[in-house]
Formats: sequence, structure tokens, C-alpha cells
Amino acid sequence: MKVGFIGLGQMGSAMATNLIKAGHDVTVYNRSRDKAEALAAEGAMVAETVAEACGGEAVFTMLAHDDALSAVVHGDGGVLASLGKGAVHISASTISVAMSERLTREHAAAGQHFVAAPVFGRPEAAAAAKLFVAAAGAPDAIQTVTPLFDAIGQRTFVLGEEPKAANLVKLSGNFLIASVIESLGEAMALVEKGGVDRHAYLDLLTSTLFNAPVYKTYGGLIADRKFKPAGFTAPLGQKDIRLALAAGEALNVPLPLASLLRDRFLNLLAHGGEELDWSAIGALAAKDAGLVE
Amino acid sequence: MKVGFIGLGQMGSAMATNLIKAGHDVTVYNRSRDKAEALAAEGAMVAETVAEACGGEAVFTMLAHDDALSAVVHGDGGVLASLGKGAVHISASTISVAMSERLTREHAAAGQHFVAAPVFGRPEAAAAAKLFVAAAGAPDAIQTVTPLFDAIGQRTFVLGEEPKAANLVKLSGNFLIASVIESLGEAMALVEKGGVDRHAYLDLLTSTLFNAPVYKTYGGLIADRKFKPAGFTAPLGQKDIRLALAAGEALNVPLPLASLLRDRFLNLLAHGGEELDWSAIGALAAKDAGLVE
Amino acid sequence: MKVGFIGLGQMGSAMATNLIKAGHDVTVYNRSRDKAEALAAEGAMVAETVAEACGGEAVFTMLAHDDALSAVVHGDGGVLASLGKGAVHISASTISVAMSERLTREHAAAGQHFVAAPVFGRPEAAAAAKLFVAAAGAPDAIQTVTPLFDAIGQRTFVLGEEPKAANLVKLSGNFLIASVIESLGEAMALVEKGGVDRHAYLDLLTSTLFNAPVYKTYGGLIADRKFKPAGFTAPLGQKDIRLALAAGEALNVPLPLASLLRDRFLNLLAHGGEELDWSAIGALAAKDAGLVE
Amino acid sequence: MKVGFIGLGQMGSAMATNLIKAGHDVTVYNRSRDKAEALAAEGAMVAETVAEACGGEAVFTMLAHDDALSAVVHGDGGVLASLGKGAVHISASTISVAMSERLTREHAAAGQHFVAAPVFGRPEAAAAAKLFVAAAGAPDAIQTVTPLFDAIGQRTFVLGEEPKAANLVKLSGNFLIASVIESLGEAMALVEKGGVDRHAYLDLLTSTLFNAPVYKTYGGLIADRKFKPAGFTAPLGQKDIRLALAAGEALNVPLPLASLLRDRFLNLLAHGGEELDWSAIGALAAKDAGLVE
Repeated sequence: MKVGFIGLGQMGSAMATNLIKAGHDVTVYNRSRDKAEALAAEGAMVAETVAEACGGEAVFTMLAHDDALSAVVHGDGGVLASLGKGAVHISASTISVAMSERLTREHAAAGQHFVAAPVFGRPEAAAAAKLFVAAAGAPDAIQTVTPLFDAIGQRTFVLGEEPKAANLVKLSGNFLIASVIESLGEAMALVEKGGVDRHAYLDLLTSTLFNAPVYKTYGGLIADRKFKPAGFTAPLGQKDIRLALAAGEALNVPLPLASLLRDRFLNLLAHGGEELDWSAIGALAAKDAGLVE
Repeated sequence: MKVGFIGLGQMGSAMATNLIKAGHDVTVYNRSRDKAEALAAEGAMVAETVAEACGGEAVFTMLAHDDALSAVVHGDGGVLASLGKGAVHISASTISVAMSERLTREHAAAGQHFVAAPVFGRPEAAAAAKLFVAAAGAPDAIQTVTPLFDAIGQRTFVLGEEPKAANLVKLSGNFLIASVIESLGEAMALVEKGGVDRHAYLDLLTSTLFNAPVYKTYGGLIADRKFKPAGFTAPLGQKDIRLALAAGEALNVPLPLASLLRDRFLNLLAHGGEELDWSAIGALAAKDAGLVE
Repeated sequence: MKVGFIGLGQMGSAMATNLIKAGHDVTVYNRSRDKAEALAAEGAMVAETVAEACGGEAVFTMLAHDDALSAVVHGDGGVLASLGKGAVHISASTISVAMSERLTREHAAAGQHFVAAPVFGRPEAAAAAKLFVAAAGAPDAIQTVTPLFDAIGQRTFVLGEEPKAANLVKLSGNFLIASVIESLGEAMALVEKGGVDRHAYLDLLTSTLFNAPVYKTYGGLIADRKFKPAGFTAPLGQKDIRLALAAGEALNVPLPLASLLRDRFLNLLAHGGEELDWSAIGALAAKDAGLVE
Repeated sequence: MKVGFIGLGQMGSAMATNLIKAGHDVTVYNRSRDKAEALAAEGAMVAETVAEACGGEAVFTMLAHDDALSAVVHGDGGVLASLGKGAVHISASTISVAMSERLTREHAAAGQHFVAAPVFGRPEAAAAAKLFVAAAGAPDAIQTVTPLFDAIGQRTFVLGEEPKAANLVKLSGNFLIASVIESLGEAMALVEKGGVDRHAYLDLLTSTLFNAPVYKTYGGLIADRKFKPAGFTAPLGQKDIRLALAAGEALNVPLPLASLLRDRFLNLLAHGGEELDWSAIGALAAKDAGLVE
């Protein structure tokens, strides 16, 4: 399939590479061109403009936040203006429910399709084509782009015809992961101050009731207190909790645990945490307990 | 090994049964005698008094809270007065760190051993001898009773020589499970109010990042809104969070997520939740969001 | 002074009336014209358009939220397009810090002045010209409009040259009031369930350490459980807490108590509280405790 | 009236002095005798034992916590064993609801009266006989000791016949004060990071809606960041919040704001705050925001 890919960060580059490997005809665009050049070696066409990446049946966007997305979608030469009739815009990054609703309306008005397809998985999973894709949108459009999802992920979940459902699920998923981080941070601070070794404790947890990768991955980072380099940065984590809270606000759903996470992220960012992995909020309970500076 | 077992609730009865099956010589005691009689059929000796259950090399206590434990340990004819020199008191239930410290001192003064060995697992796991045992105490004493642990569980983790370390780990583990319940409760309230089916959502979660039994078990209960019969009741959950907070207080460890859980349990108990499974706190986010009464 | 007044709700109408009473030449505008007509009887000129209200030395806006303000300020015939060079736009309602920053820039670019002057006080205080004005902006502009502030309030506090400082102070003030409501709600739930009469309790509090009007007013509403008619509605309270949190987010200031208030408001709104006074969040602690439905 | 006074800290010494000044015949007891000697100069008799202080119609206890109170009340030569039939034990310090219930039973069984009469006010108010007394107990007993209350306070509130009601009200009152501290701490962190001067801000607040002494006193301490010497220490504040939470737990009343305060106190104590005034929790929001170390 002829497909565009806009946004070549750690995740996007890996996903675009897997699309190429699967035999698709991929045109990539990135604001800083060097990341696009790197993919040329893999077989990608490099677009000079957003519009050039919109000439196929579908275009992915994988951009860090709503503003970055809006910058490539709206305006002259943007995705909305450039995509053909019947083509599909696949938004694979974590965006707000409100933006998803807006793009659904706008693409429909332009005779195009909008599919929200945020992915679960860290950069390693993206590289291994082991992402999970949470997709929602018109059934026809979903069907058209399913081969693309197959190329980047290990399984696709279809969550209905309303694109925003997928965005909500993605936000809630990141909220759940951040909750794991917070709970592990508090538990480790408690047992450590009580004399138990953090790593032995984590081994017990992940050998028994909590033998999921998310506990192993984040528990290990917290036990090691090693938050660099970041797989997913604190500002991105903060953004996702903000969007989950905003979605809750629009629906009148109180989310006290998400509120706690919000304050943890702000605390982290107020102390120079911009470059850290988001799991660094898991060290704040230890800080509050006087275990670390 | 000749061993006593005091406290024959759902968990205790299953554990005592597995000790018998493993060939140990088990004398059981329960305040209401009928539960002890039921084990006679499995091959247990039935003690008329606590003291009669204390004649072997070790005695288990599996009682719902500190007060119940103290009632059988202290006073004339209690465990402390009845256990032989060098014998081991194994406390397998979830008790306070403070009580563990007290029993450690008292048994040492009486020439006996105290081993804290709380277990992880719900009644089904207890019945299947699949518990996880978190044990701490003097190495000799631990070694003596290891065959008993092997009879009731699938793996034993030794957490050091201070019995209280095991109690702290157990409390923190229950805190982690309750955190999973709360986080799932909030996430499901959010996506459900946004139009996503609760069961489809849970399927996605547990097929991807959260494929641990704890998410499947509790997520299922929350998605089904089925909190009876209780595998572990709300008052027991509330007690454990209280003890985790008390341990945190003694160590000056703030635990904001545990504080949230505390308030959830009090809310539940203020609305007649005594008989419900502790996962019923996972419905309170939906209640706050106006999704359920 | 020749002055316009846009936004004639309960507060705005009272403020405009006091400007007229003080001898100013007031032109009023309101989207639904009937409220403007009512002021004609007091001596106001009634504008047909926003632009007609912008012909004097200053124009007040007293609108419920950022969107309503933007609707009258931006676009053809808006305040920005209509106000004369050197004239002052006084924003007296509670708006976001971000909007204040935007208007500061835009008015400066148009050769106009922007003064943020949110007011403290409920409708009774507005009617009695007893408001407190928290003003910030360029010293010259503040000086020009001081007679207007004198006409509507009992005292003006000047908070510097950056208009947004006044907005931040206003938001923080509403946060403090909402905190009083929450704390009284929790305290009353506790003592009431312990057998103490709510009104006797409030009498003790407000006769001793808490003899400020804010405790009397809101404590009375909570003790009476009388939240209609609203002096300040729950959606407005929710908005202000949202804006305080947003300001905190922009500055990386965690605000856990504000987060709690946020969730209280969402809970209230999820249960049909749109028409209630914002102090109705003070009944939620009693609801959580099972004292009220 | 012949009256004993046990517990001569800052508050107790001032109260005993005022009883002497009012013409009562006061016998004082303190564990470290030097504080008692200091009162001899004011006209007090100095007791060598607790029992010697229990020879009159009434005896006050003003001790820092339940354990200290129990140490003088229970056992040989304690208040219970020493007080005459019909005499009144007035507990004026902040104790737990559970201890109040216990003493009510025990004194009744001994043919004595128990009156809970905790006081509101800092040491300056105690010295000036300007305390507020929150009293509860049998009407006869209250009537008997009312002249004593008149000597130490400016007003007495009678809260019913159940002594524990007064303890609950006292705990809730300290919770309300701590809530003021927290709310001011968050508000000041927010406006300060937004460029507003803390002292100017406090002046605005306390000149307008928050003109109560509690805002002036604690707001001043927070704005000055001056938490030594302590008028009321952080460990005492932590104790009172703990007792309020325990009372809430016994009654199934969730108290999320009290939970937040609990965690603030533990954070403070984990960082060496034992000697600080309890208002030092009001600096933690600024610390979380990166404004102070």
C-alpha cells in the first residue's frame, strides 16, 4: 500500500521501518529532515513537505502532542488539504479526546476518513513490530488499513466506530501504567525504610502476583533508580495524565488517582525532570520519606 | 512433623488440609468448633483448647486480626504459655508490624521462636497448595518449618531475620493489589462513560500490558460488578490498608495512594459493604461518576 | 467617566448599577437584551452591539468564562477592534491566566490598555458596592480607572504591572474559599456522625477561631444543606478550580488540595448539581459517610 | 475550689497560673519537678505524687498524648485510684475519642465524674485566660467545674453529656486549622511562582475575606517561613490528625483532606521537622514546586 508517515521520533521511526519491511511503499516526513534521511536507507521516500506525504491511500501521524499534530494537519498544505478523497488519516500517537472529535468532523467534511489508532508499547516493542494497536473508526476505513496495523503490531483491537474511543482507551492505559509506577514507588519506599532490600522485594513481587512485564520493567527502573535514558519522558507522561483528566472533566468523571499522578509529575518537572523517564515519579515517595534527596 | 493449626477460616482450613495431605500430624483448633470437626474427617486431631494445639514442634496461627491473635497467644493457656522451648510459632495471617515486633520479643523471652510467614493468594490458591509464602525469622527456625511451607505453597521467599519484614511485605502486597483495583475502577469509569464496553476494555488490557492474574481476577469482578460472595472481604481489606498506613506512620513514610484507598474502604463500609469482596471499592469511581447508584 | 459594561449577570448588573449611581456615564451591553433594558431604568444607555459599548475611556467585561469573553473581544466589531487608542479594557470576571496573557499582548499591540481587575464578593456585596478589587496592569491605566473601582468596591489592591498576577490571585482566592467549604464539609460529617449537632458545632467554630464571614456564610449553607438558590453556581466553582490547576500546571506547582476539590466538583456535576451553589460540594463528605443520600 | 493540675507544659502552666490568680486552691504535679516548682512561686502547692494532686473536688490533666494520660490515670496511685467519690477528672488536652470513652466508663465505675474539656488557643491565649473551652459530660459535673473554666477561658461551649463529643470537636477543630495551613501553603506557592509577593498577597487575603486570626497567624508564619520556636509542634499536629482519622475510621467517615494532611506531616517529620511549628507543613507545597529546598 502507498502510505505516508509523519513524525519520526523513536517510536515513529521504528513503526515506519516496519511498514517498509512489510513491503509497503512509504513516504516519510519529519520537521527536522535528518531523521527522515535515516529512513531513506531503509527504503523510504523522503518528502520535502507534509503534502508530499499525503499522496497515498493512508497517512500516519505520530506526533508528540495536539499542537504538533494540528501544525501538520491544519493550514495550507496540511494533511486535511492534501489528502485525497477516501484516503485515511491514521493518528497513532496519544492525543486528546477533544482533538480526536475535531479531526473526525473535519476529515468527514473533507470526504476523508479519520482512524484513531494509538499504540501500546515502548520503543523496543515498536522496533520488534510487537506493538498493540487500539483502533477505532469507520469499519471500511479500519479494514483498509488493517494490513498496516499488522505490519507494526502483534495485535489490533477494534474499539468501535467512534475514533475518540481509541484515544480514551489509550489515555486510560497510560494512566494505568502510571498508577503501577506510583504504587510501586510507595510500596518500595515503605519496605525499604522498614529494612527490606528493594531488589529482593521486586523479585518476590514479580515472581508471584505481579508477573506482568509492566511491573518488571518499571519496578526495575525504580529499584535501580535509573531514569536515564528515558524510554518515555516525564513531560509526555504528564501530558497523558493531563489529557486523561481533561477527558474525565468533559465527562464528569472524578479521577482521584489520576489527580495524584498529576501532582507527582508537576513535582518532578519542578525539580528538573524534563529529561527523565516518566517512571521517575516512582522515586518521589522515597523522596517524601527522606530516603533520597 | 507434629504441628498445630489455630484459625480455620476459608484460608486456614485449606492450609491445614494441605498440611495433612503432605503427611504432617496436625492438631487443629478453632473458636467455633464446627470448623474443626470438618477437618477431623480429613485426618486432623481436634483440640479442645489452644494449649492442646501447641504440643508439637510448631503451631500456625491464621487469624483475622491482631486482637484475635492476641486472644489466643496471650493469657493463661495461650500460645506463649503453652508452646515448648525451641518450638516455633508461625504467624501466617496479615498482622500489624507492631504486633509482629511484640511477638518477636515475647517468644524470644520464652525460649521459643517466632516466624512471620504471611501468605499471598486467594482461597482457590490456598486449596490448591499454590500460595506464596513470605517468611522472615531466625534462619534455624525457618529451616525447621520449611517443609510446612512446602506443603501449603508453591514457593517461599525468605526476607531476612526480622519477622516484621515479612509482615511489612505482606501489607505492601495487599496495598499493591488494592491499588490495581482502584486504578481499574477509575479507568473503567472513564472509558465506560466515554462509550467503551467494560468487558471489551478489560479484554484489551489483559491481553496486552496487564496480562497478570491480578488484573484478570479483579478486573473481571469490577467489570461484572459482582462482589458477592467475597473471596476477601472489604473489612479485611480496610484492615490491611490501615496496617500499611500505620507501618508508614511509624516509619514516617507518606503514602498518598494508600490514603486514597483508606477513604474508599470507609466509604464502602459506610454504605453497607461489610459482606462484599474488597474489590467493591473498584465500583466507587463509577458511583462518583454517576454511572451506578 | 464614559464607560461601557459588557456582561449583565447577577454580579455585572449590580456593578453597572453602582457605576451609574456614582455618576458615571454607562453604556451597557448584554447578549440577551432584557437584562440591559432593566438597567436602562437605572440610567444606563443600552448598546445594540459590543462596539457601541466600547466608545468611552474604558469598558468592563464581566463574563462567565474565557469563551464568552473571547466571543466579545475578538472578531469584527469586538472589543479589540472597537476600543479607542489609549482606552482601557477592564476584565473583572475570573478568567484564565493564559487568556489574561493573551489579552495583555493583543491590547498592547492595538495601542490599548488591558487591566485585570477581578473582584471578591458574592452578589450581596456587589449590590452594596462592597466588593474587593484585585487589580493589576500598567500604573497609568490603573490610575485612570481607579474612580470606577471606587464606585463598585470598598477597597482596591494593586498587585503589580502584569495583569495576570491579579487573575492568579483571584483564582487562588476562590481556591481558598473552596478549601474552607471542603474542610467544613469533612469536619461536619465527622462530628455529626459522632453525635454532635451541626448548627451547635458551627456556632462554636464561628464564635471562636473561625469568626470570618466566609466560615459563617458557607458553614451556614452546609449546616442547613440548602444549596438553592445559588449565589455562585457549581459549574463556576468547577471552572475556577480548573483554571487554578491549569495555572499551577503552567508553573509546575502541584496542588493536591485543589485536585481534591476538582474531583468533588466533578462528582457534584455528575449527580445533577449544575444549578446548586458551589458550597454543595460541602455535602459530599456527608454523602461518602452515608449520612445523606 | 480545691483543684489539682497534672501536666505543666507551656499550656498547662499558663492554665494553672490562671486558676491560682482566680483564687482557687491549686496543687500541681509534673513528672519533671522543676516546672512544678516554678508554679510554687505563683502560689501553687507542689505535689510529690499524682495521688497528692487528686485530693480536691477536681483534677485537670493536660498531657501531650493518650499514653502520658494513661500513665497518670491508671495503676496504683493513679488518678482513678486516688480521686474521691463524686470528684471530677477534667481532661483538657487533646486525646483520642477511644480514650475518652474508656475514661468515661472507668470513672463512672469508680463513682467519679469524667469531663472532657479540651481547649482552643495557642500559648499566648492560655496566658491571657482567653482560651475557648469545649466541654462535655454529665450536667452536674459540668456545673461544678464551670468556675474553673471561667478562670482559664473567655467562653465555654457545652457539647452534651457524652464526654467524647468534646474530644471529637477538638480534633475536628485542629483538623480545620491544619486545613487552613495547607490551603494557604498551596495558594502561596502558586501565586509566588506566578510573581506575586507572599506578604502582599497575605495582606490582601487577611484584609478581605479571610480576616480571621487563624489566617493572620498561620499565614504570617508561612509567608515568613519562620517555624521556630514552635507554638505547637509538628508531632503534636501529626498526632491530632492521626486521632481525627482514627475517629473517622471508627465511624466510617472518609476524610480525604485529613489524609492529605497526614501525609504532609509524615513528610515533614521524615525531614527533621520534630522541633518545628506544625504550620511548617505549609511550606511543603512550595518545596514540591521547587521554590525552596
